[in-house]
Amino acid sequence: MNGLTFIIGGARSGKSRYAEELVAALPAPWTYIATAQAYDDEMRARIGEHRSRRGAGWHTVDAPLDLTGALAAQPQGQPVLVDCLTLWLTNHMLAEHDLDAECRRLAEVFASPRGPWFVVSNEVGQGIVPDNALARRFRDEAGRLNQKIAAIADTVLMMVAGLPLKVK
Amino acid sequence: MNGLTFIIGGARSGKSRYAEELVAALPAPWTYIATAQAYDDEMRARIGEHRSRRGAGWHTVDAPLDLTGALAAQPQGQPVLVDCLTLWLTNHMLAEHDLDAECRRLAEVFASPRGPWFVVSNEVGQGIVPDNALARRFRDEAGRLNQKIAAIADTVLMMVAGLPLKVK
Amino acid sequence: MNGLTFIIGGARSGKSRYAEELVAALPAPWTYIATAQAYDDEMRARIGEHRSRRGAGWHTVDAPLDLTGALAAQPQGQPVLVDCLTLWLTNHMLAEHDLDAECRRLAEVFASPRGPWFVVSNEVGQGIVPDNALARRFRDEAGRLNQKIAAIADTVLMMVAGLPLKVK
Repeated sequence: MNGLTFIIGGARSGKSRYAEELVAALPAPWTYIATAQAYDDEMRARIGEHRSRRGAGWHTVDAPLDLTGALAAQPQGQPVLVDCLTLWLTNHMLAEHDLDAECRRLAEVFASPRGPWFVVSNEVGQGIVPDNALARRFRDEAGRLNQKIAAIADTVLMMVAGLPLKVK
Repeated sequence: MNGLTFIIGGARSGKSRYAEELVAALPAPWTYIATAQAYDDEMRARIGEHRSRRGAGWHTVDAPLDLTGALAAQPQGQPVLVDCLTLWLTNHMLAEHDLDAECRRLAEVFASPRGPWFVVSNEVGQGIVPDNALARRFRDEAGRLNQKIAAIADTVLMMVAGLPLKVK
Repeated sequence: MNGLTFIIGGARSGKSRYAEELVAALPAPWTYIATAQAYDDEMRARIGEHRSRRGAGWHTVDAPLDLTGALAAQPQGQPVLVDCLTLWLTNHMLAEHDLDAECRRLAEVFASPRGPWFVVSNEVGQGIVPDNALARRFRDEAGRLNQKIAAIADTVLMMVAGLPLKVK
């Protein structure tokens, strides 16, 4: 596998765990690019849980905003896990950056993966229309970004209750 | 293809775009039946975006409420895209019409498509239970309508990040 | 079929109806284990609707909390439908029980089904992140439980507009 695998799923659908298994089936070393920012205790606990689940062999890079730069700096042929796109998008929205430009730059780097890259993202559009405009905007931007990356990816998997369903 | 294709997906899952591609692969002219009503600027922007994406060859019919009538008036053998069922349902709910009767009449006209008809609808039931009773009722009604139309359709596709997953 | 079938889907996706059809295709008698508690009129109406849809041949057991005990008491070889896991989880959350312990005990009894058992559960994680912490916690717990049971099950189906999509 030497291309882009896109793994989409709802909250607690087992996306991260499954992506880690796919990466760990390849020869180490593995790079984990984390986009999470620990705003509060709930998020800190979640980050800690993910980090403790991963064992030796993983090299962690924090890239809450400059994911494009972090990816461009990856060595050729090395497995990379990006976890996750929706948090990266949240960080740029909160920072009031130009999302169109950021997403375009990200899609460009994903279009030429330098190894087996695995990208995790959230499905957030299958509930009722949210009350507040910011949530609606986030839902729209996340959906657009997911479509863009899925279109580029070699393989697209949707997680359902911890199990992968092949979409592409 | 001379029957009913039902395309369901979350917000920004690429439903409309994919349905337009399926229709545009058939010989023109194509009819686009729009159920959207421009209540506010956000909706007006969304309608405008969809409209500008469609090019020549499309004939647009607005049917925010009388979708059944609009479909019954379609010529035999001509491709039709209905976008979308959930907005049509919203319009009838806001008008406090008899939803059971409306959905029954709609299902009857869909049961005998006069050509290759493509119907787009939203999945809204995969989030947390909504706080307010109106949203819960909408979710129930939309789910029931989606089941009814999917049962009639020859082909049912679920959109995931812009990609179709064959359900039927 | 002599194992565990897990049926997951959104609200009004046809989960219960489809599970009932799978059970009713097997020789009677059939046991229906209901986890619903009638807190309000809306819930009472929903329970009544489900109950009236099921006909003769069904034996109903109410197990809003002690689902593990109700399952352990089932005779060997007899079809059982559990409807649904997410309501059972809600009941334990509201009672402030130890969810980890409860889910572990439940998973143990599901790991050795005494006949063809069918378990219905809700997908609640594919919408926008909920505003309130309790809803977020419920979403996390439900997702974790769904993963646990899907991992054990022989067959996993996801319902889309009343139609089953095979996941496992």
